[in-house]
Amino acid sequence: MENEELVNIRLSDDGASVVILDQTLLPNETKYITLQSAAELRDAIYMLRVRGAPAIGIFAAFALYVLARQTKAPDNNAFREEISRYSDMLNSSRPTAANLKKQLRRMERLVENLSGSPVPDIIDAMRNEAENILREDIEMCRAISEYGLTLIRDGSGVMTYCNAGPIATSRYGTALGPIFLAHERGMRLDVYCCETRPLLQGARLTAYELDAAGIGCTLICDNMASIVMSEGKIDAVFAGCDRLARNGDAANKIGTGGLAVLAKHYGIPFYIFCPSSTFDPECATGGDIEIELRQPDEIKELYFEKPVAPAGVKCYNPSFDVADNRLITAIITEKGIFRAPFIQSLTALTD
Amino acid sequence: MENEELVNIRLSDDGASVVILDQTLLPNETKYITLQSAAELRDAIYMLRVRGAPAIGIFAAFALYVLARQTKAPDNNAFREEISRYSDMLNSSRPTAANLKKQLRRMERLVENLSGSPVPDIIDAMRNEAENILREDIEMCRAISEYGLTLIRDGSGVMTYCNAGPIATSRYGTALGPIFLAHERGMRLDVYCCETRPLLQGARLTAYELDAAGIGCTLICDNMASIVMSEGKIDAVFAGCDRLARNGDAANKIGTGGLAVLAKHYGIPFYIFCPSSTFDPECATGGDIEIELRQPDEIKELYFEKPVAPAGVKCYNPSFDVADNRLITAIITEKGIFRAPFIQSLTALTD
Repeated sequence: MENEELVNIRLSDDGASVVILDQTLLPNETKYITLQSAAELRDAIYMLRVRGAPAIGIFAAFALYVLARQTKAPDNNAFREEISRYSDMLNSSRPTAANLKKQLRRMERLVENLSGSPVPDIIDAMRNEAENILREDIEMCRAISEYGLTLIRDGSGVMTYCNAGPIATSRYGTALGPIFLAHERGMRLDVYCCETRPLLQGARLTAYELDAAGIGCTLICDNMASIVMSEGKIDAVFAGCDRLARNGDAANKIGTGGLAVLAKHYGIPFYIFCPSSTFDPECATGGDIEIELRQPDEIKELYFEKPVAPAGVKCYNPSFDVADNRLITAIITEKGIFRAPFIQSLTALTD
Repeated sequence: MENEELVNIRLSDDGASVVILDQTLLPNETKYITLQSAAELRDAIYMLRVRGAPAIGIFAAFALYVLARQTKAPDNNAFREEISRYSDMLNSSRPTAANLKKQLRRMERLVENLSGSPVPDIIDAMRNEAENILREDIEMCRAISEYGLTLIRDGSGVMTYCNAGPIATSRYGTALGPIFLAHERGMRLDVYCCETRPLLQGARLTAYELDAAGIGCTLICDNMASIVMSEGKIDAVFAGCDRLARNGDAANKIGTGGLAVLAKHYGIPFYIFCPSSTFDPECATGGDIEIELRQPDEIKELYFEKPVAPAGVKCYNPSFDVADNRLITAIITEKGIFRAPFIQSLTALTD
């Protein structure tokens, strides 16, 4: 496992299937599964075998290509209709994932634009387009990682939160990208991963990815972030972002907002990493971002051998919180590093 | 279960055994176990069936009485020697628990002081002394609770951390005491319990105790404290303390220090509750308090169905951290409410 790169989404050698790392089995089992039928491909998204918004988009593009290869459509029109049906079917697996819809639409547009070409040529073009989507994501992650790497140096202590690594994207990842890039270049970092309750993405995915890449890391419970910071072990906090408001308020996995408060208290730079597509100019502040509330069983039962609290006890389980822009040192996208006042600097993202 | 008071330590009706609530089975099973043999009594402490420093002290006193009743010593001297051996045996179960040693010594001193009395009289006096220890703990908790209750009012939102309730003491508890007292007096509070990773005392014990008493509460993951505070739901944070330094720095369960930072950021009063015996005048600041480091399996494996991170991943697992005195609004003991400058106010605790 050590030093071997995780490739979470790829075509099989014969191009007839999509091969993915089954994320639901991590970290106890590193299992690649080969998917070919429409039902298998759809369920892989629905069942979270593939997760992370960019990763889902890439997967869906390859899935559509694999399904296109199986066509028995008698003519070009029938083929386009078939692709449209498959696209709708894949899109229905997780209707809220923006990247999923975006990449499926891109594939459909390609098919429409080539309506005069022979079906085999269109299918070849679909493979190219899926590979373009993958390559663009790698380039985006790579650019973010390069910018991020300028913020740390050999020996730096970096705290990570949740999972914004290769598994959630293509390669490198966003917030984890600079760490992978640093490793490639022979730099040594002290990485502290917050486990990220209740879904434990920091433990199950981030610590797993770093370990698999041969990058040492130290796992902590979220409530240990304060003592680790107070002990001078952290030079920078790296977090991802699910939605970025006009003023720089950043919604991300629950706990990110509190981590930003702690970093400010201890005088540690707090950085947000995201593709520029995360910027939502229609969102004035974090207060406009709706916070998804999830089920109590995620807190009391999921992953546990037995429930850890009585059945009658209520839970409050917000899935996200907002890092106040005044606590954010800089926001890193593939277009560069943005600093306060964000209300001005972030306008570059809408160009 | 509802509204029924949890009595975690008592003598059996015939006085021949100690009956305790087995804390290792909580919250899934509320089981009282009857202990009589030396091995059973010692193991109950060692196996954490009874935990919480005051509770261990009370239990040990009753255990020594139960063992004294079983004596076959031919004379007074032999009896005293027997008690001394039992005391050493019980004390060896958890050598670091200060209250355990303290209460066992108190029982031994009583036996020594009564060396001229008939053995049956000494045994009766031991029962009285154990009941005194229990009563004094109840009084201490009651006084702390009364002082604490003056800090909140009907409808207040209170955040709790770890477990400093009846299970860890005798009745009421320390940090949870005001909440139980408020309930007795018909006040309604909005109580938010932080689950307290990695040992989940907030979920397994605090939420359990409040639920059992018919006091509604809401369980959250520790990383949700920030959003709950930011939403204006919390009027006061109540935490316990394991060691209190001369300057008011308070060592308590890991995560307490970070919670104090968040409370300060959001302008919410942060209160520390402890018996005056927690004050350590030999400790100048929190920096002098040694932080116990525990095993990685507590983070990666304990309570989980399967490990949540790869075997090779390191963990950092400090069991305590320190709430900086500048972040503490007041410290509540049975001797009253102490405020900054603590370096002056806390001198009253050494009187």
